[in-house]
Amino acid sequence: MAVYTDVVAEDLAQFLAGYDIGELLAYKGIAEGVENSNFLVHTSQGNFILTLYEKRVAAKDLPFFLGLMEHLASRDLTCPQPVKNRAGEVLGTVAGRPAAIITFLDGMWIRRPSPAHCAALGSALAKLHLAGLDFPLKRANALSVGGWRALYEHCSARANEVQRDLRSFLAKELDQLERNWPRSLPQGVIHADLFPDNVFFLGNKLSGLIDFYFACTDTLAYDVAICLNAWCFEIDHSYNVTKGMSLLQAYAAVRPLSAEERQSLPLLARGAALRFLLTRLVDWFDVPPGALVRPKDPMEYFRKLRFHQTVNSARDYGIDG
Amino acid sequence: MAVYTDVVAEDLAQFLAGYDIGELLAYKGIAEGVENSNFLVHTSQGNFILTLYEKRVAAKDLPFFLGLMEHLASRDLTCPQPVKNRAGEVLGTVAGRPAAIITFLDGMWIRRPSPAHCAALGSALAKLHLAGLDFPLKRANALSVGGWRALYEHCSARANEVQRDLRSFLAKELDQLERNWPRSLPQGVIHADLFPDNVFFLGNKLSGLIDFYFACTDTLAYDVAICLNAWCFEIDHSYNVTKGMSLLQAYAAVRPLSAEERQSLPLLARGAALRFLLTRLVDWFDVPPGALVRPKDPMEYFRKLRFHQTVNSARDYGIDG
Repeated sequence: MAVYTDVVAEDLAQFLAGYDIGELLAYKGIAEGVENSNFLVHTSQGNFILTLYEKRVAAKDLPFFLGLMEHLASRDLTCPQPVKNRAGEVLGTVAGRPAAIITFLDGMWIRRPSPAHCAALGSALAKLHLAGLDFPLKRANALSVGGWRALYEHCSARANEVQRDLRSFLAKELDQLERNWPRSLPQGVIHADLFPDNVFFLGNKLSGLIDFYFACTDTLAYDVAICLNAWCFEIDHSYNVTKGMSLLQAYAAVRPLSAEERQSLPLLARGAALRFLLTRLVDWFDVPPGALVRPKDPMEYFRKLRFHQTVNSARDYGIDG
Repeated sequence: MAVYTDVVAEDLAQFLAGYDIGELLAYKGIAEGVENSNFLVHTSQGNFILTLYEKRVAAKDLPFFLGLMEHLASRDLTCPQPVKNRAGEVLGTVAGRPAAIITFLDGMWIRRPSPAHCAALGSALAKLHLAGLDFPLKRANALSVGGWRALYEHCSARANEVQRDLRSFLAKELDQLERNWPRSLPQGVIHADLFPDNVFFLGNKLSGLIDFYFACTDTLAYDVAICLNAWCFEIDHSYNVTKGMSLLQAYAAVRPLSAEERQSLPLLARGAALRFLLTRLVDWFDVPPGALVRPKDPMEYFRKLRFHQTVNSARDYGIDG
């Protein structure tokens, strides 16, 4: 759920008067995105999304995110588009927050992805990586290997409350990943959060990608590893090699993975699992007792990480090493 | 915020296959209604609302609510309409809950109602009362005078935590209202929860009423008293007689208030204030400490009740007594 800020009808009507998107007919807060407040806006020209950027998103990063969405669309990758107002600007202010009008993207996210969905995702991810290669802006990834130790320091003291010896497990894994993290792989724009709820389908056809607010400049194959974690495990946390194969082969058919990228895949997958394990642990401890919103289970990513530690080569993920 | 139940795309597509409302293109959980889960559903024919009825709404009451919405629309009162599926039914099942597809009503609710908005509300309320007169179904009001003692018993032990001597204040007021409650006034269908967020406007024109899930058979003038409480007080809890006059005169122009109804208005207004004070107190104590959702302030209605206790006649509300 994400509506942190109330918007007054008169204020929104005034904001929209600066745009050529028709007359405001209705708007409703929607449960999409966790960092921002989002509203469906219905005008005489159709549906749009109003996003208010809350404190968790740095205002200085907004040109990167919004510019990237425009850039990717100009390269035929379907994603929501920031709408320009009559002054040619995509950013304004509503209710004291930076705000943008974004096009409404049809499609629905898949709760139980099939191998075919994983293939469609792999192909779209590779297209995103290629389309992003000539995007001129850069944004460092605060949630890659360089940022994990700070997260660890934040949650390690209480880690053993969640599972016995979790603290020493995390410490050892973090040491290993910091020492061995691959630093010479191809870099570019990565989505960094391409979970199933950020990938829309119409029928079995992928209709677009959303939520670019973690996007950054980082190792492309790390984005692949994030998707292996997010798309190719079953409810019981077992890895589904058919889904992995579908994802990886579809990706490589658009953007071939180098031998070095393939060899690094087990380590990148461990890193991706550690990243979500750490951020979920931080969120787990930050929620006040008795809160109505349950944070996501961190231990899902502990189990995934344990699997990746047993992997010998990319072959175990479903692609030649 | 109200999305208590997740809906899977495949399940929704299958449910919609029973309707003639086009192909499912998108759906998003929306922050509307507090008793049910609501989704905006976008199809090739436009926008609709999917409502899943959660436990707080009794399944046996659904034919009353949905039938009322159809009845009122047939009498030219604008409100969302339950859509019939191909079998002619308005109720089905999604995610194990009773579910209905409802038409999407354009319009926005007014955060800061003006006297003109209050007049539009008064007129619409009177039209609703007239249109409901020949609605054949009945539903008792569990939140009228007969239900207040149970609410009082539920929250009285802790009432003094909120304000000194609140418990004895409530006990005395409840005694008086039970003894003096007017029982011979005209009855009919009342909305019973017609707060500003349930009344939509387009510009200054009222475009429709929503959320009939508290509607019931009760004293018509009690509904007027609920609206006086909900629409005619300022942020500082002072009564705005200009707004009250606008509301009452516009109401009476459509459905004249009898002398007995006018004389009863101060008592009905006290009752309406006590009803929301009690339910808000119950919600206040039911919320676990540290919860992310703040319940509404009960003391807002304490202050309104205190005002009504000082009122001598309907003239103080802005209409001849």
